[in-house]
Amino acid sequence: MTINTYYGPEGHGPYELYDIGTLDLEEGGAIQNCQLAVATHGTLNAAKDNAILVPTWYSGTSKIMEQVYIGTGRALDPAKYFIVVVNQIGNGLSTSPHNAGDGQSGPGFPRVRIGDDVRAQHKLLTERFGIRSLALVVGGSMGAQQTYEWAVRYPDMVKRAAPIAGTAKNTEHDFLFTETLVDAITTDPGFKDGNYGSSAEVAAGLKRHAKMWTVMGWSTEFFRAGRHRALGFDSMQAFVDNFMTGYFAPMDPNDLLAMAWKWQRGDVGRNTGGDLSAALGRIKAKTFVMPISHDMFFPPADCQAEQELIPGSEFRPVASIDGHLALFGTDPEFLAQVDTHLRALLATSV
Amino acid sequence: MTINTYYGPEGHGPYELYDIGTLDLEEGGAIQNCQLAVATHGTLNAAKDNAILVPTWYSGTSKIMEQVYIGTGRALDPAKYFIVVVNQIGNGLSTSPHNAGDGQSGPGFPRVRIGDDVRAQHKLLTERFGIRSLALVVGGSMGAQQTYEWAVRYPDMVKRAAPIAGTAKNTEHDFLFTETLVDAITTDPGFKDGNYGSSAEVAAGLKRHAKMWTVMGWSTEFFRAGRHRALGFDSMQAFVDNFMTGYFAPMDPNDLLAMAWKWQRGDVGRNTGGDLSAALGRIKAKTFVMPISHDMFFPPADCQAEQELIPGSEFRPVASIDGHLALFGTDPEFLAQVDTHLRALLATSV
Repeated sequence: MTINTYYGPEGHGPYELYDIGTLDLEEGGAIQNCQLAVATHGTLNAAKDNAILVPTWYSGTSKIMEQVYIGTGRALDPAKYFIVVVNQIGNGLSTSPHNAGDGQSGPGFPRVRIGDDVRAQHKLLTERFGIRSLALVVGGSMGAQQTYEWAVRYPDMVKRAAPIAGTAKNTEHDFLFTETLVDAITTDPGFKDGNYGSSAEVAAGLKRHAKMWTVMGWSTEFFRAGRHRALGFDSMQAFVDNFMTGYFAPMDPNDLLAMAWKWQRGDVGRNTGGDLSAALGRIKAKTFVMPISHDMFFPPADCQAEQELIPGSEFRPVASIDGHLALFGTDPEFLAQVDTHLRALLATSV
Repeated sequence: MTINTYYGPEGHGPYELYDIGTLDLEEGGAIQNCQLAVATHGTLNAAKDNAILVPTWYSGTSKIMEQVYIGTGRALDPAKYFIVVVNQIGNGLSTSPHNAGDGQSGPGFPRVRIGDDVRAQHKLLTERFGIRSLALVVGGSMGAQQTYEWAVRYPDMVKRAAPIAGTAKNTEHDFLFTETLVDAITTDPGFKDGNYGSSAEVAAGLKRHAKMWTVMGWSTEFFRAGRHRALGFDSMQAFVDNFMTGYFAPMDPNDLLAMAWKWQRGDVGRNTGGDLSAALGRIKAKTFVMPISHDMFFPPADCQAEQELIPGSEFRPVASIDGHLALFGTDPEFLAQVDTHLRALLATSV
């Protein structure tokens, strides 16, 4: 267990920690006393049918989902819905390498899959909240991977699904991109096979990781339009050093690697013997597939190929030159489009 | 000076070495007895107006230009034209870190800019071949950077120009991408600040560099369509390990870094006090700007923005899901389109 003050209620609260007991893992082994960090907004109605589940993305926590997507008058409106944001395993708030006990800390953390997260979340929602129906599951990037997994694994429970900027089955290209992110961290001599003393000792690797996120996370058009300057940075150097490197620097490298391993292997076809078409064909949720126009690693074409396999689904791309990291909320027009689509989706009768 | 059997006439010939004497460098200093490796095809006519210059790209040599772009019945037809392929400084055949003498070898190699290459090529063409007019300058990627530099620097000499998959002024996004390539090599402990004993000692860094080229060099659509399998590799792993890593592994790391430094700083605006518009406005060559549809780091939009600044130019994008590395000649339809555009360009009267 490593002390890391980045992860905690001061920066990421309020949230509650729920102990869901033993979580058996698809790769073998288990997490004992698995903790899920959960932020809720709004009130569960008597029929218990106004719940929305929001899983989190790589490096993100419930806080950014609250700040960017949830609010009165927004599509995700706590005045109407009971919104449950569950931090994914490994993200630093829920059970993660840096805070795990019982010989599972740091590089000893077991391999966790998207399916493990979704079963953990299902246990939480059904056993702790008594929820048997979800009005919507919506998430971006790895949150979209979890959204797809939910819709395939629990087709009767998920009424609507909105995977944003993510895929049901990770592509070979995306797997390799993520591998370069992993390499950036693990090749830092300060990483010491995961046995570093603090994130600061892996600063060089985390900075290379941040640079690669800068190259692939935004888009060529974003930089040509000077969007990094519009966000308050007077040069690319300042944008990389202050914004992107500053964002990742305090994070725990083993936590990031646990999420990266999971991200690389997202594949709902694991539920159907490797048959992606059969898995997506199971989905009963009304599904809006919402890629971002300028996303360099979850591009619209990859998402559309999957959308065509989902009964009754709609392809609802969102335009933003901010690319994948429009998810951060840097582009108000992106958020307006997301809200428009989510409102339309929530208005569909199912 | 390092022995590297990769660079030589067996793999890359035939070519001739020309000593152009002292090349003064824009960044200061000079290369004494600067050697340019030059491959020619066809015959210079009596009027000396049928010459085509082909500069080379990052990691490429005259050999791939010969194999992929030059031939009887092709647009670049040695039966009609005198085609001069000049290997860029630093590419391993011309004067480069690994073969330089006089205290300039390896990490002691001076910084060379695109403008230095173009002045060196100008000296070669005018003094050795007596050429005063170029029917066409055509190159891809860093070859496009040199093509733009030629058209701006010698507007009366260049009659036609075809920059393919490259820009006149490198973008901030592209600069950062190249920085991640540089980081991949220089952070390898075996690199030893450029004082390695052989490329094999930097194998891990060169492999990371190859992975990043795989992510950005092709396209998401390329992999979704299984183009890597169509090229004969049964998995992404095999494609990365055998094709991409195999391609870069024998190359000299300092040579690659010399080219990367040059690539990052390509900017014809250096001829006009930083005014890109004024520089491109100087061009008298009939210019076809030819980006590749799925290029992830020289995208069509970046190229079109420059094309609009060139008098009388035409935007002639080429479609290929192979992305930037369609330049390698992996897609016959890409090559057919390139030939069509080059034939049309060569048919224009100027």
